[in-house]
Amino acid sequence: MATQGQVITCKAAVAWEPNKPLVIEDVQVAPPQAGEVRIKILFTALCHTDAYTWSGKDPEGLFPCILGHEAAGIVESVGEGVTEVHTGDHVIPCYQAECRECKFCKSGKTNLCGKVRAATGVGVMMSDRKSRFSINGKPIYHFMGTSTFSQYTVVHDVSVAKIDPKAPLEKVCLLGCGVPTGLGAVWNTAKVESGSIVAVFGLGTVGLAVAEGAKAAGASRIIGIDIDSKKFERAKNFGVTEFLNPKDHEKPIQQVIVDLTDGGVDYSFECIGNVSVMRSALECCHKGWGTSVIVGVAASGQEICTRPFQLVTGRVWKGTAFGGFKSRSQVPWLVEKYLKKEIKVDEYITHNLTLGEINEAFDLMHEGGCLRCVLAVHV
Amino acid sequence: MATQGQVITCKAAVAWEPNKPLVIEDVQVAPPQAGEVRIKILFTALCHTDAYTWSGKDPEGLFPCILGHEAAGIVESVGEGVTEVHTGDHVIPCYQAECRECKFCKSGKTNLCGKVRAATGVGVMMSDRKSRFSINGKPIYHFMGTSTFSQYTVVHDVSVAKIDPKAPLEKVCLLGCGVPTGLGAVWNTAKVESGSIVAVFGLGTVGLAVAEGAKAAGASRIIGIDIDSKKFERAKNFGVTEFLNPKDHEKPIQQVIVDLTDGGVDYSFECIGNVSVMRSALECCHKGWGTSVIVGVAASGQEICTRPFQLVTGRVWKGTAFGGFKSRSQVPWLVEKYLKKEIKVDEYITHNLTLGEINEAFDLMHEGGCLRCVLAVHV
Repeated sequence: MATQGQVITCKAAVAWEPNKPLVIEDVQVAPPQAGEVRIKILFTALCHTDAYTWSGKDPEGLFPCILGHEAAGIVESVGEGVTEVHTGDHVIPCYQAECRECKFCKSGKTNLCGKVRAATGVGVMMSDRKSRFSINGKPIYHFMGTSTFSQYTVVHDVSVAKIDPKAPLEKVCLLGCGVPTGLGAVWNTAKVESGSIVAVFGLGTVGLAVAEGAKAAGASRIIGIDIDSKKFERAKNFGVTEFLNPKDHEKPIQQVIVDLTDGGVDYSFECIGNVSVMRSALECCHKGWGTSVIVGVAASGQEICTRPFQLVTGRVWKGTAFGGFKSRSQVPWLVEKYLKKEIKVDEYITHNLTLGEINEAFDLMHEGGCLRCVLAVHV
Repeated sequence: MATQGQVITCKAAVAWEPNKPLVIEDVQVAPPQAGEVRIKILFTALCHTDAYTWSGKDPEGLFPCILGHEAAGIVESVGEGVTEVHTGDHVIPCYQAECRECKFCKSGKTNLCGKVRAATGVGVMMSDRKSRFSINGKPIYHFMGTSTFSQYTVVHDVSVAKIDPKAPLEKVCLLGCGVPTGLGAVWNTAKVESGSIVAVFGLGTVGLAVAEGAKAAGASRIIGIDIDSKKFERAKNFGVTEFLNPKDHEKPIQQVIVDLTDGGVDYSFECIGNVSVMRSALECCHKGWGTSVIVGVAASGQEICTRPFQLVTGRVWKGTAFGGFKSRSQVPWLVEKYLKKEIKVDEYITHNLTLGEINEAFDLMHEGGCLRCVLAVHV
């Protein structure tokens, strides 16, 4: 490509400061260095983690930055030593890396690769601790090692999943975050068995993906809990069999669920990021074996609490990040499952806009009717 | 036996009211009803749960009562329908029943049998919701379904483990609570694998049994943590390889442990019942897979807290009761392991007294030098 080795000037949505509208700017994107990949982002979705950092509540948020972490694109060029992807490959950038060499990757027990985290956590690339984004020489921070709200981005090679080029990028971009998080929470973290009773707190994209995963695992009852009753009808399509709105009950919702299920659910999933709901999710679990998985991300500094008796009597409290999926190895597998129609993706997309409309897209996210809004990045 | 079907008058240590010395009284013990077993208790040990209820801090404590739940004896007589034990059988009463019929027992996932809990939780027998203990007609409550601070006690048949008559009752009485709790926390609840790094908080009987279990499981490092450094020398005999006294460190103990272990331990066990230590135990676990098991019993109303991020990044928080052992099925197996010298028991017994000296025994329990004090009940 003509752009290879060159700085590319392109459009990106820049978050100059917390809680101020993003601004579409001309951004300079430097060529990928050793171990890096420059990707032409074609489609990106928005996720609540973007909104959280943008809001300024994330104490680790750095500004100015380019947000975005749920996307798909095509490799524009690769840096020295990059062998697993090449120019033209269709890819999904992964905020959770997979190096296959670190203590975490080799453990066989977790997907939390540690290789590039120290750099991505502070908005830079590992090799020189610098950003590849700038505007007239002023550096703009990376975000989550992905920064997909840009027509071009640079990521570490351990953060790129190469996918089947037959997959429609405007759909499978969702496999970069929310859908795998929900499916994996069920399949990898909880390991829900056939016949289980499951409770899902929060019926957004992640909660619906949990329901979908639980249905695929053979759950006998999938109880959806949300304070917005309008979400219930849609949730049926994802496998939810019963609905509860905590506002309709005087008793704490965990007690309502325990009463409805002869002692509690086998598995529960918190997909909101609310610490008091996390407690309800644990305490609605069945004594002796009920397992609760925290999927939602709580605001910084908030804490979960419960009586230790809840655990001593056999409940288990866990959490999950990216659903426990190993990103480079398993995102391509999820894409294949989508192509074989074994998992839903299209059904989570409720809105389509363009990168230039990104502020409207953030507004939409806070409406109950929106699941995922996909932005076309090059229009 | 001549006593069969008769009320037996015998000595028992009665807790008339919270926090007042126990009084050795002549107690009437009624014959066992259908599904019940009357046991001549020969030896009983003391455990911190007895002291907790005695202290009055347990809101479910009922007075007057006969405490005690770690003991061994011989079946004196059985009620109607009791088929699995007979007069003369050597037995260990089990505060955790095992009916093999309830939802819990059949689940295959827990040892928390639910059959008699509603009765034992309120100090009575299930068939008629009455006590079998009285003094001149005034009922005295049962405790934990065992009440072993008495020369004779009546328990539900689902709470009796029949053991090898070759086993010395003055030793294997310990297999009624503390030692199995520690071993089982490692073997059943955490499932520690060979090569693991383990942290044990609290080096009393349960903590030492955790160390012993971890050593048997092949743990590569067993870090003992206690605020009483005098306990360290003894702990070596149970498998502890390294010692930490939180008082010797400025940094929080979880940070000290994380630094010492390249990121944290694989498994940790809280064997004290202190909610702030429970937090340390969780947070000293390795990101991605570290599992913390709450073994100690906290005072009523106290809560555990942590940031949900601890779980989202892969730590698991669990608890255990009686180490996850199925009492009737597995206590006899533990006795066999003791007879084959595969587990320690004698080493936990630091003092031997008589039932009449029970108040001294409680005093001893609060001294760091005491692990278990075994009382001879018939002297």
